Amino acid sequence: MNSVASTCPVARATDILGDRWCLLIVRDAFDGVRRFGDFQRSLGIARNILSDRLRKLLDAEILQLQDAADGSSYQEYRLTRKGEDLFVLIVALRQWGEQYLFEPHEARSVLLETASGQALAALQCSNLHGKVIQAADTQVIKPAQ
Amino acid sequence: MNSVASTCPVARATDILGDRWCLLIVRDAFDGVRRFGDFQRSLGIARNILSDRLRKLLDAEILQLQDAADGSSYQEYRLTRKGEDLFVLIVALRQWGEQYLFEPHEARSVLLETASGQALAALQCSNLHGKVIQAADTQVIKPAQ
Repeated sequence: MNSVASTCPVARATDILGDRWCLLIVRDAFDGVRRFGDFQRSLGIARNILSDRLRKLLDAEILQLQDAADGSSYQEYRLTRKGEDLFVLIVALRQWGEQYLFEPHEARSVLLETASGQALAALQCSNLHGKVIQAADTQVIKPAQ
Repeated sequence: MNSVASTCPVARATDILGDRWCLLIVRDAFDGVRRFGDFQRSLGIARNILSDRLRKLLDAEILQLQDAADGSSYQEYRLTRKGEDLFVLIVALRQWGEQYLFEPHEARSVLLETASGQALAALQCSNLHGKVIQAADTQVIKPAQ
Protein backbone atom coordinates (compact mmCIF):
# COMPACT_ATOMS: atom_id res chain seq x y z
CA MET A 1 0.00 0.00 0.00
CA ASN A 2 1.24 3.42 -0.84
CA SER A 3 0.12 6.17 1.50
CA VAL A 4 0.82 9.17 -0.66
CA ALA A 5 -2.82 10.10 -0.14
CA SER A 6 -2.89 9.24 3.56
CA THR A 7 -3.67 12.14 5.85
CA CYS A 8 -1.28 10.68 8.45
CA PRO A 9 2.25 12.10 8.35
CA VAL A 10 3.59 8.93 9.98
CA ALA A 11 2.12 6.80 7.20
CA ARG A 12 3.58 8.99 4.47
CA ALA A 13 6.98 8.97 6.16
CA THR A 14 6.98 5.19 6.42
CA ASP A 15 6.31 4.84 2.69
CA ILE A 16 9.97 5.61 2.20
CA LEU A 17 11.46 5.07 5.67
CA GLY A 18 9.63 1.89 6.63
CA ASP A 19 12.43 -0.08 5.05
CA ARG A 20 15.49 -1.41 6.79
CA TRP A 21 17.92 -0.75 3.95
CA CYS A 22 16.77 2.82 3.41
CA LEU A 23 17.27 3.58 7.10
CA LEU A 24 20.74 2.02 7.12
CA ILE A 25 21.77 3.90 3.97
CA VAL A 26 20.71 7.16 5.64
CA ARG A 27 22.63 6.14 8.77
CA ASP A 28 25.73 5.48 6.67
CA ALA A 29 25.32 8.78 4.84
CA PHE A 30 25.41 10.57 8.21
CA ASP A 31 28.61 8.64 8.96
CA GLY A 32 30.22 10.01 5.80
CA VAL A 33 29.67 7.18 3.33
CA ARG A 34 29.34 8.68 -0.15
CA ARG A 35 29.99 6.10 -2.86
CA PHE A 36 28.12 3.06 -4.15
CA GLY A 37 30.94 0.66 -3.39
CA ASP A 38 31.37 2.00 0.11
CA PHE A 39 27.67 1.60 0.87
CA GLN A 40 27.90 -1.92 -0.50
CA ARG A 41 30.85 -2.81 1.71
CA SER A 42 29.30 -1.24 4.77
CA LEU A 43 25.94 -2.91 4.38
CA GLY A 44 26.85 -6.25 2.79
CA ILE A 45 23.95 -5.75 0.42
CA ALA A 46 23.37 -7.06 -3.11
CA ARG A 47 24.10 -4.52 -5.84
CA ASN A 48 20.59 -4.61 -7.28
CA ILE A 49 18.97 -4.03 -3.89
CA LEU A 50 21.37 -1.19 -3.10
CA SER A 51 20.68 0.39 -6.51
CA ASP A 52 16.95 0.17 -5.90
CA ARG A 53 17.14 1.78 -2.47
CA LEU A 54 19.52 4.54 -3.58
CA ARG A 55 17.11 5.31 -6.43
CA LYS A 56 14.22 5.50 -3.96
CA LEU A 57 16.20 7.86 -1.73
CA LEU A 58 17.12 10.03 -4.71
CA ASP A 59 13.50 10.09 -5.88
CA ALA A 60 12.42 11.09 -2.38
CA GLU A 61 15.03 13.88 -2.41
CA ILE A 62 16.65 12.50 0.73
CA LEU A 63 19.89 11.94 -1.19
CA GLN A 64 21.30 13.84 -4.14
CA LEU A 65 24.10 12.99 -6.55
CA GLN A 66 27.13 15.26 -6.68
CA ASP A 67 30.48 15.12 -8.43
CA ALA A 68 33.14 13.67 -6.19
CA ALA A 69 34.91 16.13 -3.90
CA ASP A 70 38.31 14.79 -5.02
CA GLY A 71 37.80 15.71 -8.68
CA SER A 72 37.61 12.08 -9.77
CA SER A 73 34.87 10.85 -12.08
CA TYR A 74 32.93 9.29 -9.21
CA GLN A 75 29.48 10.46 -8.34
CA GLU A 76 28.75 10.79 -4.66
CA TYR A 77 25.51 10.40 -2.76
CA ARG A 78 24.98 13.27 -0.35
CA LEU A 79 22.18 13.99 2.08
CA THR A 80 19.95 16.88 1.08
CA ARG A 81 18.57 19.25 3.72
CA LYS A 82 15.49 17.01 3.79
CA GLY A 83 17.80 14.05 4.41
CA GLU A 84 19.81 15.83 7.07
CA ASP A 85 16.58 16.49 8.93
CA LEU A 86 16.34 12.73 9.48
CA PHE A 87 19.13 12.99 12.04
CA VAL A 88 16.69 13.03 14.93
CA LEU A 89 15.01 9.89 13.58
CA ILE A 90 18.30 8.01 13.32
CA VAL A 91 19.24 9.15 16.83
CA ALA A 92 15.84 7.94 18.08
CA LEU A 93 16.49 4.51 16.57
CA ARG A 94 19.98 4.50 18.07
CA GLN A 95 18.93 5.50 21.58
CA TRP A 96 16.09 2.98 21.68
CA GLY A 97 18.44 0.28 20.40
CA GLU A 98 21.05 1.20 23.01
CA GLN A 99 18.50 1.05 25.79
CA TYR A 100 16.78 -2.20 24.88
CA LEU A 101 18.83 -4.28 22.48
CA PHE A 102 22.24 -4.52 24.13
CA GLU A 103 23.47 -6.25 27.24
CA PRO A 104 25.12 -3.80 29.66
CA HIS A 105 28.67 -4.73 28.79
CA GLU A 106 28.18 -5.59 25.15
CA ALA A 107 30.39 -3.70 22.70
CA ARG A 108 28.51 -1.16 20.60
CA SER A 109 29.17 1.87 18.48
CA VAL A 110 28.54 5.20 20.18
CA LEU A 111 27.46 8.59 18.89
CA LEU A 112 29.40 11.42 20.50
CA GLU A 113 29.39 15.17 20.33
CA THR A 114 32.76 15.77 18.70
CA ALA A 115 33.65 18.88 20.72
CA SER A 116 33.00 17.35 24.14
CA GLY A 117 33.49 13.65 23.43
CA GLN A 118 30.27 13.07 25.35
CA ALA A 119 27.08 11.27 24.43
CA LEU A 120 23.99 13.18 23.39
CA ALA A 121 21.11 13.79 25.74
CA ALA A 122 18.22 11.35 25.53
CA LEU A 123 15.61 12.60 23.09
CA GLN A 124 12.36 13.61 24.73
CA CYS A 125 9.06 14.95 23.50
CA SER A 126 8.09 18.25 25.01
CA ASN A 127 5.34 20.80 24.67
CA LEU A 128 5.84 24.32 23.38
CA HIS A 129 6.83 25.49 26.87
CA GLY A 130 9.56 22.87 27.18
CA LYS A 131 7.72 20.54 29.53
CA VAL A 132 8.48 16.87 28.85
CA ILE A 133 5.37 15.00 27.79
CA GLN A 134 4.51 11.34 27.30
CA ALA A 135 2.29 9.62 24.78
CA ALA A 136 -0.52 9.51 27.35
CA ASP A 137 -0.50 13.32 27.45
CA THR A 138 -1.30 13.53 23.75
CA GLN A 139 -4.02 12.77 21.25
CA VAL A 140 -4.21 12.51 17.48
CA ILE A 141 -6.92 14.50 15.74
CA LYS A 142 -7.81 13.27 12.28
CA PRO A 143 -9.14 15.64 9.62
CA ALA A 144 -12.82 15.52 8.77
CA GLN A 145 -13.48 13.01 5.96
CA MET B 1 20.28 -9.87 7.02
CA ASN B 2 19.70 -10.03 10.73
CA SER B 3 21.79 -7.66 12.78
CA VAL B 4 21.38 -9.24 16.17
CA ALA B 5 25.17 -9.41 16.31
CA SER B 6 25.74 -5.94 14.88
CA THR B 7 27.51 -3.55 17.19
CA CYS B 8 25.40 -0.71 15.79
CA PRO B 9 22.28 0.11 17.82
CA VAL B 10 20.63 1.61 14.73
CA ALA B 11 21.09 -1.66 12.83
CA ARG B 12 19.64 -3.74 15.66
CA ALA B 13 16.68 -1.37 16.00
CA THR B 14 15.94 -1.58 12.29
CA ASP B 15 15.81 -5.39 12.43
CA ILE B 16 12.36 -5.00 13.91
CA LEU B 17 11.46 -1.38 13.12
CA GLY B 18 12.73 -1.22 9.54
CA ASP B 19 9.34 -2.39 8.39
CA ARG B 20 6.42 -0.22 7.39
CA TRP B 21 3.71 -2.38 8.93
CA CYS B 22 5.46 -2.72 12.27
CA LEU B 23 5.83 1.05 12.49
CA LEU B 24 2.17 1.63 11.61
CA ILE B 25 1.00 -0.98 14.14
CA VAL B 26 3.02 0.80 16.83
CA ARG B 27 1.52 4.12 15.70
CA ASP B 28 -1.98 2.66 15.97
CA ALA B 29 -1.22 1.20 19.40
CA PHE B 30 -0.32 4.71 20.59
CA ASP B 31 -3.66 5.87 19.18
CA GLY B 32 -5.47 3.32 21.32
CA VAL B 33 -6.01 0.47 18.86
CA ARG B 34 -6.01 -2.81 20.82
CA ARG B 35 -7.68 -5.60 18.86
CA PHE B 36 -6.77 -7.61 15.79
CA GLY B 37 -9.85 -6.58 13.85
CA ASP B 38 -9.33 -2.90 14.68
CA PHE B 39 -5.72 -3.00 13.48
CA GLN B 40 -6.94 -4.72 10.34
CA ARG B 41 -9.56 -2.07 9.65
CA SER B 42 -7.18 0.77 10.40
CA LEU B 43 -4.37 -0.54 8.23
CA GLY B 44 -6.25 -2.28 5.42
CA ILE B 45 -3.77 -5.13 5.74
CA ALA B 46 -4.15 -8.83 4.94
CA ARG B 47 -4.80 -11.02 7.98
CA ASN B 48 -1.72 -13.17 7.48
CA ILE B 49 0.57 -10.15 7.20
CA LEU B 50 -0.98 -8.54 10.27
CA SER B 51 -0.61 -11.80 12.22
CA ASP B 52 3.03 -12.02 11.23
CA ARG B 53 3.83 -8.45 12.28
CA LEU B 54 1.92 -8.70 15.56
CA ARG B 55 3.87 -11.87 16.32
CA LYS B 56 7.15 -10.08 15.59
CA LEU B 57 6.15 -7.20 17.88
CA LEU B 58 5.18 -9.65 20.64
CA ASP B 59 8.45 -11.54 20.22
CA ALA B 60 10.33 -8.25 20.42
CA GLU B 61 8.43 -7.39 23.62
CA ILE B 62 7.14 -4.18 22.07
CA LEU B 63 3.56 -5.42 22.43
CA GLN B 64 2.06 -7.74 25.01
CA LEU B 65 -1.25 -9.60 25.07
CA GLN B 66 -3.70 -8.81 27.85
CA ASP B 67 -7.26 -9.83 28.60
CA ALA B 68 -9.71 -7.25 27.33
CA ALA B 69 -10.47 -4.39 29.66
CA ASP B 70 -14.23 -4.91 29.16
CA GLY B 71 -14.20 -8.45 30.55
CA SER B 72 -14.99 -9.99 27.16
CA SER B 73 -13.05 -12.95 25.85
CA TYR B 74 -10.98 -10.78 23.52
CA GLN B 75 -7.26 -10.51 23.89
CA GLU B 76 -5.82 -7.04 23.48
CA TYR B 77 -2.44 -5.93 22.21
CA ARG B 78 -0.88 -3.36 24.50
CA LEU B 79 2.39 -1.51 24.30
CA THR B 80 4.97 -2.60 26.85
CA ARG B 81 7.25 -0.05 28.47
CA LYS B 82 9.77 -0.90 25.73
CA GLY B 83 7.04 -0.18 23.19
CA GLU B 84 5.97 3.06 24.86
CA ASP B 85 9.55 4.25 24.61
CA LEU B 86 9.09 4.28 20.83
CA PHE B 87 6.94 7.39 21.18
CA VAL B 88 9.82 9.68 20.31
CA LEU B 89 10.52 7.62 17.16
CA ILE B 90 6.92 7.84 16.00
CA VAL B 91 6.90 11.59 16.71
CA ALA B 92 10.14 11.93 14.71
CA LEU B 93 8.51 10.19 11.74
CA ARG B 94 5.43 12.38 12.14
CA GLN B 95 7.29 15.68 12.35
CA TRP B 96 9.50 14.88 9.37
CA GLY B 97 6.43 13.81 7.40
CA GLU B 98 4.61 17.00 8.35
CA GLN B 99 7.53 19.13 7.28
CA TYR B 100 8.32 17.50 3.96
CA LEU B 101 5.47 15.34 2.70
CA PHE B 102 2.46 17.65 2.81
CA GLU B 103 1.49 20.70 0.87
CA PRO B 104 0.86 23.69 3.14
CA HIS B 105 -2.92 23.51 3.04
CA GLU B 106 -3.29 19.76 2.69
CA ALA B 107 -5.44 18.07 5.35
CA ARG B 108 -3.49 15.95 7.80
CA SER B 109 -3.86 14.40 11.20
CA VAL B 110 -2.25 16.33 14.04
CA LEU B 111 -0.73 15.26 17.33
CA LEU B 112 -1.70 17.58 20.17
CA GLU B 113 -0.93 17.85 23.84
CA THR B 114 -4.34 17.07 25.31
CA ALA B 115 -4.16 19.58 28.15
CA SER B 116 -3.23 22.57 25.99
CA GLY B 117 -4.60 21.54 22.61
CA GLN B 118 -1.29 22.67 21.16
CA ALA B 119 1.22 20.88 18.97
CA LEU B 120 4.39 19.44 20.43
CA ALA B 121 7.72 21.19 20.11
CA ALA B 122 9.94 20.08 17.24
CA LEU B 123 12.27 17.30 18.36
CA GLN B 124 15.89 18.33 18.49
CA CYS B 125 19.12 16.60 19.39
CA SER B 126 21.03 18.26 22.19
CA ASN B 127 24.14 17.66 24.20
CA LEU B 128 24.17 16.93 27.91
CA HIS B 129 24.11 20.67 28.66
CA GLY B 130 21.00 21.24 26.58
CA LYS B 131 22.71 22.84 23.59
CA VAL B 132 21.07 21.91 20.29
CA ILE B 133 23.47 19.98 18.06
CA GLN B 134 23.43 18.89 14.45
CA ALA B 135 24.72 15.76 12.77
CA ALA B 136 27.87 17.66 11.74
CA ASP B 137 28.68 18.21 15.42
CA THR B 138 28.83 14.48 16.08
CA GLN B 139 30.81 11.39 15.24
CA VAL B 140 30.24 7.66 15.55
CA ILE B 141 32.95 5.64 17.28
CA LYS B 142 32.91 1.93 16.49
CA PRO B 143 34.18 -0.62 18.97
CA ALA B 144 37.54 -2.23 18.33
CA GLN B 145 37.15 -5.41 16.23
